[in-house]
Amino acid sequence: MITLTAYSWVPPIVRGLVRDLRVRWALEEAGLPYQVQLLDQRDKPADYRDWQPWSQVPAYEEDGLRLFESGAIVQHIAEKSPALAPEDAQAKAHMTCWLFAAINSVEPPMQELVLIDFMHGDKDWAKVRRPMVMEFVQRRLKGVADALADREFLEGRFTAADLMMASVLRMARNTDLVEEAGLGDYLRRCEARPAFQKALAAQMADFRGAA
Amino acid sequence: MITLTAYSWVPPIVRGLVRDLRVRWALEEAGLPYQVQLLDQRDKPADYRDWQPWSQVPAYEEDGLRLFESGAIVQHIAEKSPALAPEDAQAKAHMTCWLFAAINSVEPPMQELVLIDFMHGDKDWAKVRRPMVMEFVQRRLKGVADALADREFLEGRFTAADLMMASVLRMARNTDLVEEAGLGDYLRRCEARPAFQKALAAQMADFRGAA
Repeated sequence: MITLTAYSWVPPIVRGLVRDLRVRWALEEAGLPYQVQLLDQRDKPADYRDWQPWSQVPAYEEDGLRLFESGAIVQHIAEKSPALAPEDAQAKAHMTCWLFAAINSVEPPMQELVLIDFMHGDKDWAKVRRPMVMEFVQRRLKGVADALADREFLEGRFTAADLMMASVLRMARNTDLVEEAGLGDYLRRCEARPAFQKALAAQMADFRGAA
Repeated sequence: MITLTAYSWVPPIVRGLVRDLRVRWALEEAGLPYQVQLLDQRDKPADYRDWQPWSQVPAYEEDGLRLFESGAIVQHIAEKSPALAPEDAQAKAHMTCWLFAAINSVEPPMQELVLIDFMHGDKDWAKVRRPMVMEFVQRRLKGVADALADREFLEGRFTAADLMMASVLRMARNTDLVEEAGLGDYLRRCEARPAFQKALAAQMADFRGAA
């Protein structure tokens, strides 16, 4: 049985963005059942850091194997499921480039923008910094849009790379950046997948259940 | 034959930090020969973006397989070499957690700190923002140090995860953060590896050669 950690409560502004969603989505695409261990952000088990060194979610357990970092967990699930990755080693290596691109090249500036907009928007330093971050995000999104061109998904068919890229693009939902970059249809195509809808509903239901 | 792209010139402050070093290091650990295609930062081939969507280095080619993102390339090399990864699938999955941790959880705040210190240190917004970034980096480094505890390397033996973590820790070389976090010995242990020294010398020589 697969166990995943998630939060029982987060502020409404980040609901639907917490990173256990990426793992839930991957598990739904792969058709693997899982159970959720809900954590109270302010009262986690004393030994949780042994499993997840930043004391964040998600952490993942499967037959005694304990993993952390949503990117690593999604990649682990993709290794097990042809629904998330091509089987050919070379094609899989290329897919992995886009998976890393999502979390190492697109997510960091996106995360900085989200941090400014959700936490520091009214501060003077943030008002000076924000246009620089916007410009950086825009450059990255142009790189994604140019590479995607007129294909439906980054590797032609849906893979774990699209799962991660769409998860990162969703972070900018308070802006028009994704639409302006020409990635709106791509993001909607990813979000329309039944596996995503099921995963999103499950994360939201867990917040409601604990309320 | 393996081909890797690198820059022929970068400002002295970032020499020894450009990300082709991570791939050179991995190739040296794996004992794989490679050739370097040096690029002029301001005059790249028109079609380079088809290979590397951000028009950065490194990009990698091996028998027609073209890869980008240093994390994906290092992981690809680790798949081929027991020098960089355990062969057991579960052990490899856990190593991958630390590889992702380095580039998705430690590198983004480190990159923000480097950006401030190398590019914006004299600006008012940066003076306000810097202590927040410092505090975030310190928390991440404490997570790494606690997890490492008294082991020599993150997974006991040296793996691609240490290669990426050390590469990220090196970014803070203008500060005492790594030493203060108790990770100084760990970083020196990684940097003392002959493969690292050879890779670093090769990057520096390429800058000199083009000068």
